[in-house]
Amino acid sequence: MEFESVRLTIPENSNIIVGQSHFIKTAEDIYEALVNTVPGIEFAIAFNEASGPCLVRVEANNDELRGAAVASALAIGAGHVFVVILRKAYPINVLERIQRCPEVCRIFCATSNPLEVLVARTEQGRGVVGVVDGFPPKGVEGTEQAAQRKQFLRKIGYKL
Amino acid sequence: MEFESVRLTIPENSNIIVGQSHFIKTAEDIYEALVNTVPGIEFAIAFNEASGPCLVRVEANNDELRGAAVASALAIGAGHVFVVILRKAYPINVLERIQRCPEVCRIFCATSNPLEVLVARTEQGRGVVGVVDGFPPKGVEGTEQAAQRKQFLRKIGYKL
Amino acid sequence: MEFESVRLTIPENSNIIVGQSHFIKTAEDIYEALVNTVPGIEFAIAFNEASGPCLVRVEANNDELRGAAVASALAIGAGHVFVVILRKAYPINVLERIQRCPEVCRIFCATSNPLEVLVARTEQGRGVVGVVDGFPPKGVEGTEQAAQRKQFLRKIGYKL
Amino acid sequence: MEFESVRLTIPENSNIIVGQSHFIKTAEDIYEALVNTVPGIEFAIAFNEASGPCLVRVEANNDELRGAAVASALAIGAGHVFVVILRKAYPINVLERIQRCPEVCRIFCATSNPLEVLVARTEQGRGVVGVVDGFPPKGVEGTEQAAQRKQFLRKIGYKL
Amino acid sequence: MEFESVRLTIPENSNIIVGQSHFIKTAEDIYEALVNTVPGIEFAIAFNEASGPCLVRVEANNDELRGAAVASALAIGAGHVFVVILRKAYPINVLERIQRCPEVCRIFCATSNPLEVLVARTEQGRGVVGVVDGFPPKGVEGTEQAAQRKQFLRKIGYKL
Amino acid sequence: MEFESVRLTIPENSNIIVGQSHFIKTAEDIYEALVNTVPGIEFAIAFNEASGPCLVRVEANNDELRGAAVASALAIGAGHVFVVILRKAYPINVLERIQRCPEVCRIFCATSNPLEVLVARTEQGRGVVGVVDGFPPKGVEGTEQAAQRKQFLRKIGYKL
Repeated sequence: MEFESVRLTIPENSNIIVGQSHFIKTAEDIYEALVNTVPGIEFAIAFNEASGPCLVRVEANNDELRGAAVASALAIGAGHVFVVILRKAYPINVLERIQRCPEVCRIFCATSNPLEVLVARTEQGRGVVGVVDGFPPKGVEGTEQAAQRKQFLRKIGYKL
Repeated sequence: MEFESVRLTIPENSNIIVGQSHFIKTAEDIYEALVNTVPGIEFAIAFNEASGPCLVRVEANNDELRGAAVASALAIGAGHVFVVILRKAYPINVLERIQRCPEVCRIFCATSNPLEVLVARTEQGRGVVGVVDGFPPKGVEGTEQAAQRKQFLRKIGYKL
Repeated sequence: MEFESVRLTIPENSNIIVGQSHFIKTAEDIYEALVNTVPGIEFAIAFNEASGPCLVRVEANNDELRGAAVASALAIGAGHVFVVILRKAYPINVLERIQRCPEVCRIFCATSNPLEVLVARTEQGRGVVGVVDGFPPKGVEGTEQAAQRKQFLRKIGYKL
Repeated sequence: MEFESVRLTIPENSNIIVGQSHFIKTAEDIYEALVNTVPGIEFAIAFNEASGPCLVRVEANNDELRGAAVASALAIGAGHVFVVILRKAYPINVLERIQRCPEVCRIFCATSNPLEVLVARTEQGRGVVGVVDGFPPKGVEGTEQAAQRKQFLRKIGYKL
Repeated sequence: MEFESVRLTIPENSNIIVGQSHFIKTAEDIYEALVNTVPGIEFAIAFNEASGPCLVRVEANNDELRGAAVASALAIGAGHVFVVILRKAYPINVLERIQRCPEVCRIFCATSNPLEVLVARTEQGRGVVGVVDGFPPKGVEGTEQAAQRKQFLRKIGYKL
Repeated sequence: MEFESVRLTIPENSNIIVGQSHFIKTAEDIYEALVNTVPGIEFAIAFNEASGPCLVRVEANNDELRGAAVASALAIGAGHVFVVILRKAYPINVLERIQRCPEVCRIFCATSNPLEVLVARTEQGRGVVGVVDGFPPKGVEGTEQAAQRKQFLRKIGYKL
């Protein structure tokens, strides 16, 4: 077994969600999950079919995001993995809906940070073993920084 | 830390689900989740107790599947991992219910493809780091193949 | 890519939950998830912010648990990972609520067993690839042990 | 405001679910919820569109059940109400999935008992105010009857 | 059709939840939902079986609450209705878990206020049409009262 | 017991959701549910506190909608009832999130149709018994109308 790190390119002003699913219906179901949640969302979903023709299955309403999602799915190259890239919406809007698609097994990450997907290679194929999502912690927040964190969430209207 | 790939044997006409949980009640709770969802489902659930007697805990209504689930759980050999094998039902029928059992942490995969579970070994024990679920993508679907994908889902009645 | 095993210290009479999320709101949202579920719960949540100041973000109502959660989050050192330590409550009480926080991607484990978190290191940072949760199975339960398992769950009132 | 009781006819060996939703997509979404949960399920869903053409919107895979669902929806006659009739499956299999369709507001009842739907009439239209689902209690179970209840659930395999 | 108001007696320091379900398994499933959520919870669940022997089916771990739940279920007297009374826990702790029991159709109310359950009577039986839960509004909060509301939720630790 | 029909005024280009909850935290929790789901949503939530000061508790980010939600909550006048009015978003986007707020008991309706809320009055107070949501069905869709229904959902992008 060998390991490699696959760096994904996330288009400007967008977020990426990477997960594991198990059926080509994933492409349509995640499509519906997204359009049912955020009016005006721009997105692409690419799913790696893992048997038969083994094609990347794609649904999207934006060409730039479509290209990025397909490129990411191919770069990861692991069977039954999917990549969602979204704009004009955020992972907190859609993550639960994606998780409840009847095929979805798990979500590896949701982020707009620099992202490495860690992949294992065997003779049979490839599998995601983890992600490096952004950077390691540099310290622990103090009282003032905790207050700023809360203030920030209230300033952008996410909390009261 | 060393890594190994564990190839699982999935009985004919069945699917496998592999996950992480945290309590022996998992065996009964997943039993109930399955029988409450699909009438006539055939299945086995095997859970690796990870403290005390460290026994594989099993519930099943089919002996062949029981044998296969126990063999898979032992072959993986990681604490708190569970294996479900099901027949006369599909992962899309039961995945959500399994995920909502109060002990279940995550689902690694759900598949009927050739499956390798990637396991790390330390002095203390073993842990699943990923799966190789089927085969890597060979290309990207074109317009015609996307149309066939949608047609197929409608032919089997999953979409309208 | 290099791998290391990080042994976490779980305070007495407590359980640990380790997961992946994606936003500093995680700290407040998991706080609310916990206090809304179990009256009298004691807990700490520590989340590794993965961009900007890269601080461990913390909410807690118990100082011992706060220290342990922060130490675990720093020891793992992977971006967007969170650690919850809880007392006077159990993972089965709160796991579903945590999973439905709108930022939470996945739960790696929930346990009071000796726990190693397996971490990959790249030039960019760190990522969790798996856990060694307790010990490997030593055998398969027989009829008598299965009966004892069921009896135990009924004795502690979890099943009827 | 006047009230009337609408007695519904439930076909042999089937169950009925009555609920409130809010969009014609209900018909397709409940269709998918049902076929995604129980392989081989027979069913019909009828939804009372409440604006514009005000048609009963129907999806079904069984003609007898289609007729019964349409007749029930018309007899109730209240806007945005839906009726599901199912066979070779039970409400416990599908109720959660129906409730999580993004349009569904509430479920009035799920039953195979004699059923009266209580309807209020105003100048504008009609609204469901309640159901008479089966018969009133005749007494309270004693120790022996409680034991029989538990035994029955275990005999049919729903509990261990 | 005739209507009556049934005033329920809620024991001191407890809350009541009234809902509609559809199977005697409700009693065991709600039992498990409650004990799996709040350690130390005291409760009773009474469910009106609506066919066959038509008995009130009961699970409880506290005799006072058992008496009160049975009395309330009998007083309502409507088929497939259930009553939960809980102490040392609050509806916000358990409501979601109860709603996700595979038999539960809907929750009428959760309250510790003076409560009237509004019941319709037909020749066949009885059905809940609504509740009077506490008292009508006397006015609209102003800026100061809104601030006090938020302060109160933070003082009791429910919000940060 | 007396009954009355309360006609609600729904502002232009908005939808209304009416439900039953049980705690003043409802106002903040539904606020968060809404802003966490749809970026740019405009809304108001009004909740009828049913004990103590019995004030309508309000959160909103739009003054017109605030006025409409408060007026509707007062007109209904039933304890523990809430009204959400939303614009630049639709009930299908947010209904599930609202239902999973830990206080929410049930949703009566979600609509932009002419709406009457049916209210029972007792000496103690008021309770919602149902809704007249739009108009009764005028007929059953035929093959052509069913095809148009599906076509419409695909034209607006909700289905593929």
